[in-house]
Amino acid sequence: MEFAKPLPSYLVQRYQGWKATTYSENRSWYRRLATEGQRPRAMVISCCDSRVHVTSIFGADQGEFFIHRNIANLVPPYEPDGDHHGTSATIEYAVTVLKVAHLMVLGHSQCGGVQGCIDMCKGLAPELERKESFVGRWMDILRPKYDLVSDISDDAEQARAFERQSVLASLANLMTFPFIAEAVEEGSLSLHGLWTDIGEGGLEYYDTKAKAFAPV
Amino acid sequence: MEFAKPLPSYLVQRYQGWKATTYSENRSWYRRLATEGQRPRAMVISCCDSRVHVTSIFGADQGEFFIHRNIANLVPPYEPDGDHHGTSATIEYAVTVLKVAHLMVLGHSQCGGVQGCIDMCKGLAPELERKESFVGRWMDILRPKYDLVSDISDDAEQARAFERQSVLASLANLMTFPFIAEAVEEGSLSLHGLWTDIGEGGLEYYDTKAKAFAPV
Amino acid sequence: MEFAKPLPSYLVQRYQGWKATTYSENRSWYRRLATEGQRPRAMVISCCDSRVHVTSIFGADQGEFFIHRNIANLVPPYEPDGDHHGTSATIEYAVTVLKVAHLMVLGHSQCGGVQGCIDMCKGLAPELERKESFVGRWMDILRPKYDLVSDISDDAEQARAFERQSVLASLANLMTFPFIAEAVEEGSLSLHGLWTDIGEGGLEYYDTKAKAFAPV
Amino acid sequence: MEFAKPLPSYLVQRYQGWKATTYSENRSWYRRLATEGQRPRAMVISCCDSRVHVTSIFGADQGEFFIHRNIANLVPPYEPDGDHHGTSATIEYAVTVLKVAHLMVLGHSQCGGVQGCIDMCKGLAPELERKESFVGRWMDILRPKYDLVSDISDDAEQARAFERQSVLASLANLMTFPFIAEAVEEGSLSLHGLWTDIGEGGLEYYDTKAKAFAPV
Repeated sequence: MEFAKPLPSYLVQRYQGWKATTYSENRSWYRRLATEGQRPRAMVISCCDSRVHVTSIFGADQGEFFIHRNIANLVPPYEPDGDHHGTSATIEYAVTVLKVAHLMVLGHSQCGGVQGCIDMCKGLAPELERKESFVGRWMDILRPKYDLVSDISDDAEQARAFERQSVLASLANLMTFPFIAEAVEEGSLSLHGLWTDIGEGGLEYYDTKAKAFAPV
Repeated sequence: MEFAKPLPSYLVQRYQGWKATTYSENRSWYRRLATEGQRPRAMVISCCDSRVHVTSIFGADQGEFFIHRNIANLVPPYEPDGDHHGTSATIEYAVTVLKVAHLMVLGHSQCGGVQGCIDMCKGLAPELERKESFVGRWMDILRPKYDLVSDISDDAEQARAFERQSVLASLANLMTFPFIAEAVEEGSLSLHGLWTDIGEGGLEYYDTKAKAFAPV
Repeated sequence: MEFAKPLPSYLVQRYQGWKATTYSENRSWYRRLATEGQRPRAMVISCCDSRVHVTSIFGADQGEFFIHRNIANLVPPYEPDGDHHGTSATIEYAVTVLKVAHLMVLGHSQCGGVQGCIDMCKGLAPELERKESFVGRWMDILRPKYDLVSDISDDAEQARAFERQSVLASLANLMTFPFIAEAVEEGSLSLHGLWTDIGEGGLEYYDTKAKAFAPV
Repeated sequence: MEFAKPLPSYLVQRYQGWKATTYSENRSWYRRLATEGQRPRAMVISCCDSRVHVTSIFGADQGEFFIHRNIANLVPPYEPDGDHHGTSATIEYAVTVLKVAHLMVLGHSQCGGVQGCIDMCKGLAPELERKESFVGRWMDILRPKYDLVSDISDDAEQARAFERQSVLASLANLMTFPFIAEAVEEGSLSLHGLWTDIGEGGLEYYDTKAKAFAPV
C-alpha cells in the first residue's frame, strides 16, 4: 500500500472550508443522519460523467438520493449467477432494504459511453470489441438496441436517440428483477426515465402516453 | 414501458428553479463543457449512500470529478472474462480515456454495505449468503479482509475498522489492473485512500508512513 | 545581462520544499496540464497588489483561472492601433483562444492606484500628471469616472466608491471589444464585477438589479 | 451594466469556506495589511497562464509579492509617450513607490504566447499579423529575438529556448527604464531571470557567469 498518496492540498483546503461552513451550519442534521441512518426518498442511476450533477439539478441535500453512477447509466438484466454484480447490488439494496419510493434513470447528452457503443456497432472501434475491454463489454448491455437508431443518418441526432434508448433499456432491464416488478406492481415504487441536455440545461422525461421523451 | 411515471412535481419545481438560476448564470460554462467534452482532474469511487456528497465536501463543480458510486465503494479484482463489469468499466474509462491524474477511494462511517458484510461473516445474515443476493455476492469482494478486524470486540469500532479496510481492499484491487499499475508506476496517476465521518464531518486519508488513516 | 542575480536563498529553499511536497504529490496533474494544455474556466483581472490572492479566496488550483494583474485592475477601451496593448492582448487570448466562460474583474480596498487617481483629480499629485509617469497615464483610464464620486466628502468612503467605479469602468470598457460583446450576447461568456475588502475578508459583486455592489 | 452576472455559486461557497478558515485564522494579519499598507519584498512578472502559480511555488503569503501577469511575461522597452502602458505602470509603481528589493521575471514551458510568436516568425500565423491582433502586436516585443533561436530544428527545443529569450528580453528592456537602471546600479534592486517547467516542476535561473539558464 506504499503507493497511496496524501490528498492534494487544494482539496484539503476546500474540505476545511466546507467543514467550517456547510458542515458547521448543519451539524445537527449530519449527526442525526449518522445516528438514525439514511432514509432516502429516491434512487438515481446516472452516468459517472463529471458534467452530470443530479444533486445540483434537483437541489438535493444530504440524505435525499441514493445514487449509483456507472458508465452510461446502464442496468444489466437480472442474472443471479453468484458473480459480483455491482449495479444489481445497488438496486437490490435501494429497493429491498431502503425501500425507496422512486427510481430514476438519468441519461445525458454527449455521453462518451453511448458514443463508444455507436462506434462499436458501426465497426469503428475494434479496441472496444476485445474481450479485455471492460468498457466494450459493459456497453454490450446497450448494443442490442442499436437497430432502433441505426437508420438515423445525422450523427448528433443518432447519439441523442441512443442516449434515450440507454434509459429505456435500463428501465426495461429493471423490470426483469423480481423485487422491482413486484414493488412497481403493488405501487410502492415508481420508475422514471429522464434525459438531460448538458449544454442547454434541458430535462426530459419518458412520457408513456406519447411513447417519447418530452420536456418536464 | 407503460410503467414509467412522470417526475414528482416537487422535483420538477426544483429543476425549474435550478434552470432559472444556477444554469442560467453559468450557461456559458455548461455550453463549453458540452461542446468541448469533459476533462476531469480526478476520479472518485464512493458509496451510493445518500449521506455522502463528495462534490459538496470538496467544493467541486460541474466538470471536476468523474464519479463512480457503488455499494461500499468497492473495486473488484481485475477479471477480463468478457462479462459485464460495471466498476471495472468506469476505471478503464477514467484512466485510459480521460487520463485522470488522481483516483480517490472514499469510504464512510455507518456504511450499510460494510455492516452487511460483517453480519455475513458473523453468521448473522443468512439471506445475504444466498446465491441470489446481489448485495451479498458484491460484499464477497471485501469478505477475505474480515480476518483483519475479527478480533475487535466493540461493534462500532469494528465497523469503522472494516470501512477503512474496504478502502484499502479497493486500492489493492485497483493495482491488479495492468493499466492502473502502469500509470501509477510512470507517475501519471496517483491513488488516494479516504474515509469520512458523516456525523462529525471528519476526513481521514491513508498515511503510508504510519500505515494507518490520519486526519487530513 | 551581467546584472542578473541568482535567486535569494530563502526562495530557493521554499521552492525545493514545494518541489518535494506539493509538486511531488501532484506530479501526475502537472504533467497532464503540461501535455494537454491549459483549459481554464475563467479569466480574472485583478490588481498587482500583494495583498490580493484570488486563487486563495476561491480555493483555485493550477489550471483553473487565467489571471491578468495590473495596477487597479483596469481595462482600457478597444483601440486596435497596432501598438503594444498588454491588457487587451490578455483579454483577446482568454476569450478568443481559450474561450473562457467567465471573466471576473476583481477590485479591492486600499488600492494605491485608485488613490493615486483621486490625488491626481484633486490636484494633489503633480508628479503623476507628468507625461513620463506611467502610473499617471495608466490611471487616466479611470479618470473620467471621478465626477461620479467627487461629491463624497469622507476620504475613505470616496476611495471605496472609486475602487468600485474602477471595476465598473473595466466592465464597460470590456464591452467595447467586439469579440467580448459578441460572446456576451450569444451567451458564451459572462462578465462579473467583484470587490474585496482586504482587512475584513469581505467580497461583493455588482448586482444589476440593485445597481449597486452587494455582499455575495 | 445590465450584462453583469452574479458569481457562480460554487465560487461563493468556496469563498465562504476561505472566509471561515484561512481568513478567520489570519484576521489580525489581514487587518494589519489593510491598515498599514502593503510592503512587498519582491515584484514578480509572470504569465497569465493558469498553470503558473508563483505564490504556490515560493510558498508566498498575502503581502509578499507584488505580481504583474501578462501574456508571455514580457516587458516593453521604456517609451514615455503619454499613452497607456500597463506593464510599465506596474514596474514604476513597484520600484519607485513600493521600492521592492527584487524583481523577478518568470517564464514557463508550454507558453502559448511564445508559441504564437514562433508561428508568426515562421509565417504560419497570418491572423496574428493583423494590425487588430492584440496578441500579435504584443508578441512583437519578443519578435526581434527570433534570430537567436531560428536555427534550432527541434520544435519543442526551439520553443523552450525562445521562452528563455522572452525572460532575457524582458530583463534587457527593464534596464532601459531609468529608475530601474539607477536602482540596480546603486544596489537597491536586483533583477532575476527565471524559467519554470510546468510538467516537471523544474525551476531555472539565468546564471550570468555561465551565460545560460541553470537549475536553482
